[in-house]
Amino acid sequence: VAGAPEPTIAWDEASGTIRFIDQTLLPERYEVVSADSVERLIHAIMRLEVRGAPALGVAGGMGVALAAQRSRAATRETFLREVEEAGAELAAARPTAVNLSWGVNRVLARVRDAPDPSSARHAAIREAILMAGEDLAACMRMGDHGAGLIPDGATVLTHCNAGALACTGWGTALGVIRSAVLAGKRVQVIACETRPLFQGARLTAWELSRDGIPVTVIPDGAAASLMRRGRIDLVIVGADRITRDAVFNKVGTYMHAVCAMHHGIPFYVAAPRSTFDPLSLEGGVIVEERAREEVSRCGDCILVPDGARVENPAFDSTPLSLVSAIVTEDGILRPPYRFGGERPG
Amino acid sequence: VAGAPEPTIAWDEASGTIRFIDQTLLPERYEVVSADSVERLIHAIMRLEVRGAPALGVAGGMGVALAAQRSRAATRETFLREVEEAGAELAAARPTAVNLSWGVNRVLARVRDAPDPSSARHAAIREAILMAGEDLAACMRMGDHGAGLIPDGATVLTHCNAGALACTGWGTALGVIRSAVLAGKRVQVIACETRPLFQGARLTAWELSRDGIPVTVIPDGAAASLMRRGRIDLVIVGADRITRDAVFNKVGTYMHAVCAMHHGIPFYVAAPRSTFDPLSLEGGVIVEERAREEVSRCGDCILVPDGARVENPAFDSTPLSLVSAIVTEDGILRPPYRFGGERPG
Repeated sequence: VAGAPEPTIAWDEASGTIRFIDQTLLPERYEVVSADSVERLIHAIMRLEVRGAPALGVAGGMGVALAAQRSRAATRETFLREVEEAGAELAAARPTAVNLSWGVNRVLARVRDAPDPSSARHAAIREAILMAGEDLAACMRMGDHGAGLIPDGATVLTHCNAGALACTGWGTALGVIRSAVLAGKRVQVIACETRPLFQGARLTAWELSRDGIPVTVIPDGAAASLMRRGRIDLVIVGADRITRDAVFNKVGTYMHAVCAMHHGIPFYVAAPRSTFDPLSLEGGVIVEERAREEVSRCGDCILVPDGARVENPAFDSTPLSLVSAIVTEDGILRPPYRFGGERPG
Repeated sequence: VAGAPEPTIAWDEASGTIRFIDQTLLPERYEVVSADSVERLIHAIMRLEVRGAPALGVAGGMGVALAAQRSRAATRETFLREVEEAGAELAAARPTAVNLSWGVNRVLARVRDAPDPSSARHAAIREAILMAGEDLAACMRMGDHGAGLIPDGATVLTHCNAGALACTGWGTALGVIRSAVLAGKRVQVIACETRPLFQGARLTAWELSRDGIPVTVIPDGAAASLMRRGRIDLVIVGADRITRDAVFNKVGTYMHAVCAMHHGIPFYVAAPRSTFDPLSLEGGVIVEERAREEVSRCGDCILVPDGARVENPAFDSTPLSLVSAIVTEDGILRPPYRFGGERPG
């Protein structure tokens, strides 16, 4: 139950580039591509070739390492300015997921600490690869902690892709499911297709069916009706940012949380500590509005006439009052949530 | 505010065929096609060239008229058998919307009452055209009754297409909106795109923007988030069948009803009396399961890998406890609902 034949994103030491699975091509084509410049990486992040909050954290860190490696600056000052500018551009590529700027800042701190450009390059690359390893380890620990939430024989609803493809490997929400399956439980998954970009249909269904975990794709709007008919035992999703009062995740998550509450079904979130932003409140977070064409066209089909407007927010926010528990690498958090000083159980 | 340049479906007396807008081609192409056989009409119904509960009622009635007109049976017995077989096939083309069999049975009754095939043909055609007129009149009366539910300046959320394209003209849910606009109110509409077949994006957005009514298309999963942010004043949808305990409508309707209740937003249904099935209960209704490909492909795009299952129910059911009011041609019904003996207010 590994999700993909190789890591979703990795530092390629031989070529000094970042290798990643181009997720826009799945499920039709599995293709590993590489970025040899920060510009190419930013393009990949904006196009969602690489996506998912934890993977974006690693991408941000590796992007800074790439900038450090490629810089030809002669002085420490010029070098630092170049790398910091690259970091700022990377962090701005997508505004909502906090992991991206977290990853950028983590590697930038190593760069700033180093006495000269050469040692900064080594420190940056080491830190970026370390982050990838820690991300995978965090997912495995989340799986250990969260597997107990999934009963044997359960049908689990998920939204978007919080899987191996959203991380270095294993996954957050899907990692919890994988760990339950690894522990011998029978689990089947209902994957909401996740409009407009179909990450549930294209990515979650692809990686779970590769692993032999039974998965059924439904239109997003069919989830509540399955809950009403007793078909769903629990909901588990990932997160892009967890503020002191709300969970930001792919648009559609909030309606599942409301409907789960209405039907008395547990609603869980799985996310590493790097997704937490305990100093912020919901109202202060910018929700990325994406292009009209993601909604108005699909392949060669025109879906919306020119005379109509389109709103395409990438995320929504779910108040913590609707969240039954949050699975982290350090344990399971339960209400009342008090991030910061909180000790996970 | 007329919705379409000609009726969604009409009897063409010159050629003795049924003319209708092929709704699978919108919004890219507006094309009126015709059916000169019951087989062609059934094909059109199954492909959703013609769709929407009230329009299906008219189509069912006109289909029986077409069968009567085309029959070459020499005896009354053979004639009746042929027409009744055609009626049974028409009624089975889509199982959930009650209007289809209602329309079939209404014209079949005229055929059975007639003393001979020739007068049966005339009676059938007359009845079918009468039904089309009554359908348009019912929509106008629904609009009169329902317009008062829509405050000036309101933003109204709707799902699927309950518009002129779902009826002979004007519409049920969108008819209420049109009537409010005709009465001078400023109204804007949020149209949920309505996966998998995008009737909201393709049809509702098309007919409202043609009429100059501001319309914004959103992914279905974004509706709850707009409700949470105070952006939605009320929800109004159509219906495919209203039993004694529930409203069957396009899949996704139920989640809007749950989320509207959660946010204290009124949830209205607009439907003519022909949509009511007061002798049935929710559990006895067959929900049409449609083809995998509607979900797994879009144009030239493959959205679901072969290894994953798909569920594609066309409808869901909303318990009447979540419905704030039902607009009919006879007035507005409010809880507690007691269909059958009930007097609308």
